[in-house]
Parts: sequence; C-alpha cells; structure tokens
Amino acid sequence: MRVLGIDCGSERTGYGVIESDGSRHRMVAAGVIKTSPKWPLERRLLEIAGGLRELIREHQPELAAVEEVFHAVNARSALKLAHVRGVALLVIGEAGMGLAEYSPLEVKMSVVGYGRAEKSQVQMMVQSLLGLSRAVESLDASDALAVAICHATHEATSRRLGRQEPV
Amino acid sequence: MRVLGIDCGSERTGYGVIESDGSRHRMVAAGVIKTSPKWPLERRLLEIAGGLRELIREHQPELAAVEEVFHAVNARSALKLAHVRGVALLVIGEAGMGLAEYSPLEVKMSVVGYGRAEKSQVQMMVQSLLGLSRAVESLDASDALAVAICHATHEATSRRLGRQEPV
Repeated sequence: MRVLGIDCGSERTGYGVIESDGSRHRMVAAGVIKTSPKWPLERRLLEIAGGLRELIREHQPELAAVEEVFHAVNARSALKLAHVRGVALLVIGEAGMGLAEYSPLEVKMSVVGYGRAEKSQVQMMVQSLLGLSRAVESLDASDALAVAICHATHEATSRRLGRQEPV
Repeated sequence: MRVLGIDCGSERTGYGVIESDGSRHRMVAAGVIKTSPKWPLERRLLEIAGGLRELIREHQPELAAVEEVFHAVNARSALKLAHVRGVALLVIGEAGMGLAEYSPLEVKMSVVGYGRAEKSQVQMMVQSLLGLSRAVESLDASDALAVAICHATHEATSRRLGRQEPV
C-alpha cells in the first residue's frame, strides 16, 4: 500500500510518502512545503493546498494519515494549525483517499515504541525503518514519514484481522 | 461592490451576498450550508468547499469577509471551527477575491452600533439595513449578512479616504 503522511504547520508542512506491506517500508518521497510568515494566511493555505495536490497527483497514494491537533501547547498556534489541517483534510477528501488520524503519542508508540520519545529518536527510527543510509534531514518530513509508517503498520494489522478498526 | 460574508461553522455555515455602495445595501443571496454531525470532518469540509465555490460562481462577489475565530468559548469547538475557516479562506483565495476579517465586536459595532448586541438585535438591524419585509430566518445567514454589511461600510470609507486601511 502507498501511504501519505502529513505533518501540518502554517509555515512548514512536512510530507512523506511510503510504499509498505505493513512491516517492510520504502520511502517514495519526503519533503516540506514552506510558506512565508509574511504572507497572509489565505495565500499560505493556497500554497499548501497546491503542494499537496501536486504531491498526490505525482505519487498516487491510496491512504493518508495526519496527526490530531492539540490545543494544550498554545491556543493561538493550535488555531492556525487547525486552519492548515482543514485544508489538508479537504485535499485528501477531494482526492478520494482514505484518511486516518493518530495522536502524537500513538505515532511515537508505533515507531519508537515509547510515547514520550524525542523528535531525534523518531528521526533515527524513521531512518532505520526505511533503511535509509542517512537520516531525513528535516524534522517535519521525518515526522510526516513517522505518521505514514504508523498508519501502514496499523492498516496492515487491521487487514490481517479482516476488519476495519472502530474509530 | 458585491460582498460575500461567511459565518463559519462545522455543522452550519451561513453565507450572505450583498450589493452595496457602502451606505445602501441590497441582499443578493443568503442561506446556510448544512452538514451532518454524523459525517467525518473531511466530508463536511468537502461539502462546505463545494457550496462556497458554487455560490461564488453564481453570484461573482469581488470581496469576502469572515469573522475572526476566538478560542475563548470552547477550545474543542474553536479548533473544529478553524478547520472550516481554513477551507473558507482557501476557497476565497482560489477565487482571487479580496479578504477581510473582523472580530464579532467590530461586526456588532458596525451593524448595531453596540459591541455587545444580542443575535436577535443583529438580525433586526440586518433586516432594516437591507430593507427586507421580514427578518432573515436563519441566525447563521443573518450573521453572515452582518459581516458583509460591516465590510461594505468599512471598504467604502477606506475608498473615500483614498487609501487601503493598514491591517
């Protein structure tokens, strides 16, 4: 299966596409859609939507996974992030892709086996699980790949069990 | 000028289109895009984006105005609202329309002359300002018309002063 992971952010939206059978994963693409904080939000959203659409057209993933958004850290940032996330969900919906959402804890549990793992530990495990000779440099792209790996693993288990997981 | 006002909501997104010279306003269209709380969020966002695009295609407004989002009331609702708002801003950006944002206080000050006006007072003033024989039934549509009137008034003043207001 081909899975797109997205790590939403109003200035940096990370993405990662993997090909996976649920236990072996291969990186297809990874990177960051960057926008300028000087741009008004609607221009940034346009850029992010355009970038994601291009990515989906090029790599044709069947499934998409994004992290849930939390308001714990900073209410203002969380609200901005939710604008970007709304646009990402719209683009995923327009492409007719299946969507899954995971908490940061679930992603870390799945990839590192430890829910409070540091970003650098996630980065190392992503490198290892994808069999890359070097770590993915951008933490945003690495986080997006982690979400994709988490979903591929989860989806393969669900398929083996022959059922859809309750949401 | 033709102005689209939007009152974002994940279950009910109100809209109102007016034709205005800044002091006299005429209603062109008003209504609500409804979605089911049973639908997953991405489906609701698809429905809202589709509805707004159709509206813009039909009525060709040049300007759009939306309310700012506040996290004061309920963090969870505010986050959901911000997803919808992100989609609305994207659609406005895609249509190449000018966008303005006002706080609920600014809208009420502009339309009722009193920042803490009740929704029913806004509804009455909207009816009066648009010269309607009956009040606009839906409060969401009425709120959207209020945002449009607020922006038309503000925009006319800016144009008379021969400058763009600093944002």
